[in-house]
Amino acid sequence: MRMKIDVALDYRLASPGAAILVVEAAGVEGQVLSDTRIDVQEPSHFARVAAEEGIGERIVMRLGDRMTCTYSAVVQVTRTRPDLAELDAVQVEHMPGDALRYLLPSRYCEADRFTNLATSRFGGLSGGAKVAAMRDWVEAHLDYVAGVSDGNTTAADTYIEGRGVCRDYAHLLIALCRAAQIPARIASVYAPAVEPQDFHAVVQVFLSGDWHLVDPTGMAQADEMALVAVGRDATDVAFLTTIPAAELLTQTVAVTRLD
Amino acid sequence: MRMKIDVALDYRLASPGAAILVVEAAGVEGQVLSDTRIDVQEPSHFARVAAEEGIGERIVMRLGDRMTCTYSAVVQVTRTRPDLAELDAVQVEHMPGDALRYLLPSRYCEADRFTNLATSRFGGLSGGAKVAAMRDWVEAHLDYVAGVSDGNTTAADTYIEGRGVCRDYAHLLIALCRAAQIPARIASVYAPAVEPQDFHAVVQVFLSGDWHLVDPTGMAQADEMALVAVGRDATDVAFLTTIPAAELLTQTVAVTRLD
Amino acid sequence: MRMKIDVALDYRLASPGAAILVVEAAGVEGQVLSDTRIDVQEPSHFARVAAEEGIGERIVMRLGDRMTCTYSAVVQVTRTRPDLAELDAVQVEHMPGDALRYLLPSRYCEADRFTNLATSRFGGLSGGAKVAAMRDWVEAHLDYVAGVSDGNTTAADTYIEGRGVCRDYAHLLIALCRAAQIPARIASVYAPAVEPQDFHAVVQVFLSGDWHLVDPTGMAQADEMALVAVGRDATDVAFLTTIPAAELLTQTVAVTRLD
Amino acid sequence: MRMKIDVALDYRLASPGAAILVVEAAGVEGQVLSDTRIDVQEPSHFARVAAEEGIGERIVMRLGDRMTCTYSAVVQVTRTRPDLAELDAVQVEHMPGDALRYLLPSRYCEADRFTNLATSRFGGLSGGAKVAAMRDWVEAHLDYVAGVSDGNTTAADTYIEGRGVCRDYAHLLIALCRAAQIPARIASVYAPAVEPQDFHAVVQVFLSGDWHLVDPTGMAQADEMALVAVGRDATDVAFLTTIPAAELLTQTVAVTRLD
Repeated sequence: MRMKIDVALDYRLASPGAAILVVEAAGVEGQVLSDTRIDVQEPSHFARVAAEEGIGERIVMRLGDRMTCTYSAVVQVTRTRPDLAELDAVQVEHMPGDALRYLLPSRYCEADRFTNLATSRFGGLSGGAKVAAMRDWVEAHLDYVAGVSDGNTTAADTYIEGRGVCRDYAHLLIALCRAAQIPARIASVYAPAVEPQDFHAVVQVFLSGDWHLVDPTGMAQADEMALVAVGRDATDVAFLTTIPAAELLTQTVAVTRLD
Repeated sequence: MRMKIDVALDYRLASPGAAILVVEAAGVEGQVLSDTRIDVQEPSHFARVAAEEGIGERIVMRLGDRMTCTYSAVVQVTRTRPDLAELDAVQVEHMPGDALRYLLPSRYCEADRFTNLATSRFGGLSGGAKVAAMRDWVEAHLDYVAGVSDGNTTAADTYIEGRGVCRDYAHLLIALCRAAQIPARIASVYAPAVEPQDFHAVVQVFLSGDWHLVDPTGMAQADEMALVAVGRDATDVAFLTTIPAAELLTQTVAVTRLD
Repeated sequence: MRMKIDVALDYRLASPGAAILVVEAAGVEGQVLSDTRIDVQEPSHFARVAAEEGIGERIVMRLGDRMTCTYSAVVQVTRTRPDLAELDAVQVEHMPGDALRYLLPSRYCEADRFTNLATSRFGGLSGGAKVAAMRDWVEAHLDYVAGVSDGNTTAADTYIEGRGVCRDYAHLLIALCRAAQIPARIASVYAPAVEPQDFHAVVQVFLSGDWHLVDPTGMAQADEMALVAVGRDATDVAFLTTIPAAELLTQTVAVTRLD
Repeated sequence: MRMKIDVALDYRLASPGAAILVVEAAGVEGQVLSDTRIDVQEPSHFARVAAEEGIGERIVMRLGDRMTCTYSAVVQVTRTRPDLAELDAVQVEHMPGDALRYLLPSRYCEADRFTNLATSRFGGLSGGAKVAAMRDWVEAHLDYVAGVSDGNTTAADTYIEGRGVCRDYAHLLIALCRAAQIPARIASVYAPAVEPQDFHAVVQVFLSGDWHLVDPTGMAQADEMALVAVGRDATDVAFLTTIPAAELLTQTVAVTRLD
């Protein structure tokens, strides 16, 4: 399938400063980019550095008191939808370093607090079947409600509150997978099925020797997502980080299915 | 200077499982390794993967119910002691991706909570002079007391408690540096001056385009440390992680200055 | 039923200081005390003040570096076992001030974080039937495991961990009840059925105009408990508080059913 | 001195429900009330219960979807300004139960985390001189900034952030006093000197056998405050609690000095 992505961001900075932007679909296997274009108004400096795991790039800019940016691209998704039930767990001692890292607890994914839940509720399953059961459970356990979580909300908070948005769903699934020794990381993506249209966060799990996209909100499928960046949790994939703080003026994300 | 390192670890696992070991001095610029030897008793599987940033390695093993390991090496340290006052801050937009990552808050280093402290107390300084002032302040603000912190203690906790051990000192300095837009990461090291002898944790800051070792406990100097591994915080450089949990039987760390 | 209570405590204080002791069965309706005796060795000062809600007393002492105390009593329990299903919720505007207070969140019972859980899982029930369902759910959701919780563990922590001891069970049930506008407080009690024998913590809920004892661990029943003290949460009913800190030397609690 | 208090509140409830209101100056020694008047529009039920420690009252109401209230009173303050330096600490074993209670940690005042700070910074002082030094330190350590704290902010958070509003100042001073075995509680008050005019929160400390008002923000003095209610922390003295949640429409607090 192919999708068209159109993003427009306009923020006011409290004072001239720097901004880090991670909004472009990544040039990685499984998706083919065309017609990409990014415009930032009047940065005094504009640089690109590799993002986490070499997937995608961070744009780092020096700005005045305004961050105005448009981004558009067409992405053809060529990856297939994984059949989780057929994927196997990888033993810890057979994992590459780049997977092993994603077993560790992180700021928003306190995997070590979910050991008992992972064992008591999902102990009888393994590999992709376990991930599938965890994904189904997260979707059932949570209500999708905007405005109840913020930049301090962790997987543990979300588990208690029973509510959240895509990043909260992702953090909870990641924490559970890691607690079960399945490497899991966050992935920021675009997907036409996301309602309302916005930046979206899902999960990548490491099974059968590769990373696979899973959406605990149930809104999107792996073969209908454009991958932007990955990381330990939301800290790593924030679409915009500014120094100093910035105020949102307007922001639109439009993702259209082309075929 | 040269140092001799001797480590012996003996742990009992609750059941057969896996262990990740990060105890070897890393083969990196600034230190020359010789006479290295590591012995683990009867692992059924033994693998090495690169650790964070390609500095050092993680040993990943499948074990029975016991983890018994000895490690010894001679390390000649060739790096020099940095003169912090002469090192400059790097602007965010000029940082490489591998430094930029270490501006972000992490589990034990909630940099975003220290913005006000970094500004109000150290706002008039910059670059290496700021790091030096922060380092001095951390050493003065904290008392070195074992047993008051644990695996849940964060930089914010340490700031309140006013006490901790080397990892707590490191986390607090890291949080302050990041809050001031200076990339900072944890480094596990060996140093003969550490009292009592043990694994030691210090800080690396990114100034003038390179990483520099700083010890907020004041016990060790950059030219008298053997670097083992680096990471966002203690999560990344744990010398031993076991699945399942393990019980300490005996552990000795001896680091002797040779010349 | 009648029970015989024998308690012996021996603690070493870090230095001469003060101790607050709350170990005596309270002189309240529903239980008749006899043969009560309390001995503390060599306090330089010994005073009694009313405990929370005038139920029981706090003994406040000035001590040397040792707190050695024995307490014994016979308690005849005359209260009956409540039939929760027949008890009604009291509307907030009809509650006395002494019940209203126990709707508020407290340190260990973050009722405001459990609103969604209380509504989504127990929304269809009310009054005593709701409390009974919550009690059953807490008992089923948690495993009774010593050593996994400590003085920092809150109801939210316990909900995530899925494990704890009597005080953790009590805090979780209290948080749920308050989230559902049912006043709930902790009660420290003695009960012969507690296994292993120890100080015990249960819950009091305010229904049909009075307070009723409920044990979320399922170990004890209201007509087989001797009430010691009540409060917002474990902070208020600690059996021993010392200034400075104290080290446990020996402690025995023996509760025997007489008839 | 005399002051005139005028309060107008208008809130919209998410649905018909209950509200608890604590806005009236209390009828206690040290202040004389006159011309008091409170009007609530169309409550279907209106009751008063004693607030904490019998100081002031909670108004409990059943309402439709609107809470509209006006309150006015003239208060003549007859209490004198305490000279902290002349007040003595009371030994724990000589405290009444109603003071002892306010040594315990509470939700927003984690006194047990401030032991080290209380000792290391204020260890050489005692009684009122210690409270005065703590008060001065809190005022100097914090910046008065609205909007950086919320209903989850505790004394520990405020200590780290270095900023807050009156309730945050009060929580931090309370935590420090309790850590030094000086009973301390929150007090909600009206004072003409508060800028901008609003409900105000200060601290009461127990010294020389009585409670004394202290304002860590430095805005008001004990002899220029009208006391409303007291409690362990902000939980107990919230001027408005609604079930369900309510949205602020308008709220004005005007306190005028008459002579």
